[in-house]
Amino acid sequence: MKYCVGVDVGGTTVKAGIFEETGKLIMKWSVPTRKENGSAELFEDIGKSIKLKLSEANISTDEVTGIGMGVPGPVLPDGYVEVCVNLGLKDRFPARELSAYMDGMPVKLSNDANIAALGEMWQGGGKGYESVCMVTLGTGVGGGIIHEGRIINGTHGIAGEIGHMHVTDGEEEACNCGGHGCLEQYASATGIVRVAKRKLASCNVRSKLRNMGAELSAKDVCDMAKEGDEIALETLEYSMGKLGLVLSYVSMCSDPEIFVIGGGVSKAGEFLTDIISRHLNAYLNMVKKKEKNVVLAKLGNDAGIYGAAKMVLE
Amino acid sequence: MKYCVGVDVGGTTVKAGIFEETGKLIMKWSVPTRKENGSAELFEDIGKSIKLKLSEANISTDEVTGIGMGVPGPVLPDGYVEVCVNLGLKDRFPARELSAYMDGMPVKLSNDANIAALGEMWQGGGKGYESVCMVTLGTGVGGGIIHEGRIINGTHGIAGEIGHMHVTDGEEEACNCGGHGCLEQYASATGIVRVAKRKLASCNVRSKLRNMGAELSAKDVCDMAKEGDEIALETLEYSMGKLGLVLSYVSMCSDPEIFVIGGGVSKAGEFLTDIISRHLNAYLNMVKKKEKNVVLAKLGNDAGIYGAAKMVLE
Repeated sequence: MKYCVGVDVGGTTVKAGIFEETGKLIMKWSVPTRKENGSAELFEDIGKSIKLKLSEANISTDEVTGIGMGVPGPVLPDGYVEVCVNLGLKDRFPARELSAYMDGMPVKLSNDANIAALGEMWQGGGKGYESVCMVTLGTGVGGGIIHEGRIINGTHGIAGEIGHMHVTDGEEEACNCGGHGCLEQYASATGIVRVAKRKLASCNVRSKLRNMGAELSAKDVCDMAKEGDEIALETLEYSMGKLGLVLSYVSMCSDPEIFVIGGGVSKAGEFLTDIISRHLNAYLNMVKKKEKNVVLAKLGNDAGIYGAAKMVLE
Repeated sequence: MKYCVGVDVGGTTVKAGIFEETGKLIMKWSVPTRKENGSAELFEDIGKSIKLKLSEANISTDEVTGIGMGVPGPVLPDGYVEVCVNLGLKDRFPARELSAYMDGMPVKLSNDANIAALGEMWQGGGKGYESVCMVTLGTGVGGGIIHEGRIINGTHGIAGEIGHMHVTDGEEEACNCGGHGCLEQYASATGIVRVAKRKLASCNVRSKLRNMGAELSAKDVCDMAKEGDEIALETLEYSMGKLGLVLSYVSMCSDPEIFVIGGGVSKAGEFLTDIISRHLNAYLNMVKKKEKNVVLAKLGNDAGIYGAAKMVLE
């Protein structure tokens, strides 16, 4: 039996798992992300924890094909990370550092949204497909594109970054990326709240959302929409309409078999994916036969470690 | 020496060429596209002409690695063409038909915009790069995306079809695809004229374009813009601005190294690519270092046969 290791480096926690090459997760754990001094010792920490867990599982390094790792920021084709704000990384080659600590074991690197997409393709909502686009609707909007079984990373490491596609002219608030009118500003959890608050402020229509006050959440919007609240429904039509539009752009670029929706907002379930799919299909005039093309993610927070491990098997 | 053959099937003419595997074109020719009875004998015609030309060039079929062919319509992953309006094709497997006529010689199939993109990557404006997006600005707007040296065809054969990305809400005229507000409606040769005429009708600003009357062409708009005509400049800002926006979408999908602009409109030269590049870069907030990323195509009408031949070498 051969094994592979998946590591998902987040801003506060590093998640990791040991997998059989068949895709079975046999052990998972997490360690805090040590960010002092620009995360100077982060990859040594990760290496130590992997060595420890492999030993606990009685797996020798000879039995490990390699390690895959995702970081929350763009990775260039040679593995270079110019800057990764959440980790305080600058000018680093994370895979080389981890590989050196692991006595030369092969280490592959990509970004966190891309490994989540590969994970969902391997063992999640996209299982059985080879070309998948995954969208993570959380605080931001992450995206990863898998083409014929492999991550598209891109020349500047921005492939799949659909959250920063420009979808609205004239937006006055700035996105984290510096742009104005990015998808993320409308379709993330915070974006849905932004759209709802603007709608509430612009009219006098009765809505239960008005009772939520400043604490209004994306979950409230989804819950109220399911109950038929007009403003909540209009909010999701707008927010998920913009997402559907962006997915049509992805279709006219890499034309995947399936779109997988994950992240906290996706807990709203098929109610949400049905709205997204309806908008997507409205823009796909060139596709004759439209199958069910938007599904829910299945792996939750584990998607990243699955996909990281799967990278090793490419 | 091994050879490969490239075939570019157009609505009126089939272009073909024999190439050395190094990329050197050694012979090219064309035959009329016989479309009678749903192009029943089209692929036999093509096969006949290839056999004839190979014999004229003293090349035996053993020396030919294979044939690549492009058709003007979507090709499904298994080579199936459900419908190809320009050729009257329906329910066909063109590569299988040609291969059968050529005694089983391997034949690869893609669509015309995709082979043009691959051709420009191989021996044209994208030479030296492996990940390229080519845009053809002609009567329509065609697009092809090459990722790591290979065409992305897509699940429904619509990968690279950036001409049908929706860029404007509220458009009243319909696009050929049935959509309203597709890039093609503003950035193609006819699209540029559409935008210019609307601008002229909406104001009284003096413009030499007013003298052109109904015969106004995209070339006129480009020529007058170079002379500083205000309406012509505004037209290109709008039309090429929409194209720049769409190229930013492609960057956030497959993130190619370079964009190559071809087709009749591209004869306006770097004046045009500079406008496109300026708009593209304005949307690429996530890319720190912006190189020259929009260049002109070099192969003209031969791009298709180059790329078709190159498919054989994948």
